[in-house]
Amino acid sequence: MYSISQLQDLVNKHIAEKEYPNNPSELYEPIRYIMSLGGKRLRPALLLMACNLFDGSVLKALDPALAIEVFHNFTLMHDDIMDKAPLRRGKPTVHAKWNESIAILSGDVMLVKAYELIMSVNDSVLRDVLRVFNETATGVCEGQQIDMNFEALDGVTIAEYLEMIRLKTAVLLAGSLEIGALIGNAPKDQAQLLYQFGENLGLAFQLQDDILDVYGDPHKFGKQVGGDILSNKKTFLLIKALELAENLEEEELNYWLNAEDFDADTKVRAVTDIYNQLGVRQLAEEQMNDFAEKALSALACVEASSEKKDQLKTFAEELLVREN
Amino acid sequence: MYSISQLQDLVNKHIAEKEYPNNPSELYEPIRYIMSLGGKRLRPALLLMACNLFDGSVLKALDPALAIEVFHNFTLMHDDIMDKAPLRRGKPTVHAKWNESIAILSGDVMLVKAYELIMSVNDSVLRDVLRVFNETATGVCEGQQIDMNFEALDGVTIAEYLEMIRLKTAVLLAGSLEIGALIGNAPKDQAQLLYQFGENLGLAFQLQDDILDVYGDPHKFGKQVGGDILSNKKTFLLIKALELAENLEEEELNYWLNAEDFDADTKVRAVTDIYNQLGVRQLAEEQMNDFAEKALSALACVEASSEKKDQLKTFAEELLVREN
Repeated sequence: MYSISQLQDLVNKHIAEKEYPNNPSELYEPIRYIMSLGGKRLRPALLLMACNLFDGSVLKALDPALAIEVFHNFTLMHDDIMDKAPLRRGKPTVHAKWNESIAILSGDVMLVKAYELIMSVNDSVLRDVLRVFNETATGVCEGQQIDMNFEALDGVTIAEYLEMIRLKTAVLLAGSLEIGALIGNAPKDQAQLLYQFGENLGLAFQLQDDILDVYGDPHKFGKQVGGDILSNKKTFLLIKALELAENLEEEELNYWLNAEDFDADTKVRAVTDIYNQLGVRQLAEEQMNDFAEKALSALACVEASSEKKDQLKTFAEELLVREN
Repeated sequence: MYSISQLQDLVNKHIAEKEYPNNPSELYEPIRYIMSLGGKRLRPALLLMACNLFDGSVLKALDPALAIEVFHNFTLMHDDIMDKAPLRRGKPTVHAKWNESIAILSGDVMLVKAYELIMSVNDSVLRDVLRVFNETATGVCEGQQIDMNFEALDGVTIAEYLEMIRLKTAVLLAGSLEIGALIGNAPKDQAQLLYQFGENLGLAFQLQDDILDVYGDPHKFGKQVGGDILSNKKTFLLIKALELAENLEEEELNYWLNAEDFDADTKVRAVTDIYNQLGVRQLAEEQMNDFAEKALSALACVEASSEKKDQLKTFAEELLVREN
């Protein structure tokens, strides 16, 4: 049985060693660049762990694991254009370093490469793996579009928000796990349990992200604490606060949402105070724990060795107490 | 045996009847829109004809044919962003009608849909079809990048130009034909002959396009005659003219290439005159005929009924005497 850190080493090594064509360099250099920026490599690690649950040999899952990471980075490359983001993990984004056309086209070719890599699976699971991958990719695109729509939309509900993060974040974790299980020759119902585990884990993970953006330790979080508040991003916390706020708190919250000229720290402090008064952090944590429990229930139903299931459980739990 | 017009009717009907999800509408409405703008539907027709060469039943090739057309329109949607094109077939482009983010994301989901559609092939050819599709898609992206690079590049050679149009235009015709043959259960060597037929046909087709842009009948061409001249686009004609021009003609050609303030008709007439003096139209036609002959030689080697091969030959010949 591989340990988590062995699996992560395998993933990191495989990502680092992957070669892309040299020409045209404008197309492939941005791929090497974004793939070298690092990250948690969460999705490929989950894919390998899911494979490892059923089948001792995970080497055949390495290319599909890389496929998922390439796909994830393709979405980041295109999302960064749409968000006009100058930085990604502290480094210039591809469209900022090169230009938009190059970021569009490199991203396109990354999506093709992801399909190429995922096709390395055995014939016996090829169609199923591709079906999950297609559904996952479609979901991620839909989630990104819904997220963009939210920016201009008043009155987003918690249910709509959860559906958006399910598509934008959770289905890729879920799909990675289901694909890993399929590659490990898991029966379909077992692979679907892994999907459920991943979907709920992804929802919990995103809620944790919302909470950390406001309440994270600035020294560990890696991003500006309060970034979501400053950009009026419709997170679980803000949507819940808008739902609960009345009278003075409602007035104050709307004041900050509409303020055009403000001191950043003052706005972050003021909105955080409102969140505290309304208790939305606790509500977010309850919702998060609810998803985490659902995830672990699905995992508990999986027919695999407890030792291997415990490994995945530990990984999930560590993920949800992260500080960055 | 199906007639060409029967096959084209099948394609058009299938494209028109294809349903896409409704939500989020910003993601799927642009797909319905661009797919409804029409076009020659050349690639799906070629795919069906190639299938029809080997196997009487083409219905199973309809979804893959649609996949190729969806893929082609995905590339148009993204290319139009990069080219900042306001119009496509006389109608606003997707990024002009909606916005750039929507055009990026709708295009992304079209690429996923193309994979979904092409996966409808039988298990026995799934991996081969996907391999050809991946290679084709990669080639098209590389061709677009090289084409963009050419804009800022002096001294592009005819060989480099031909390699660019091979990637940007010819491989998709070639891939469509090879995929059609594979779906028709053609042996691999036969499918590769179809690829060669398509590759050379595509090269001839693009050279014809270069010629028509300057020498086409303005009433039939559908685009502004001389558009390539006005934008200094590096076509076969311009590259050859730059290669051949000496003395006064060289000076005059460079004058027009560098002119910033000019009357459009005067520039088109002047550059066309230089092309005429240098005889580059004839050289382009010779090159085009050379590719057309290579295409037909490959087709001649295909082991299929002469009647069916003649159909494909007629289609190719009509394509190369088109006026639009």
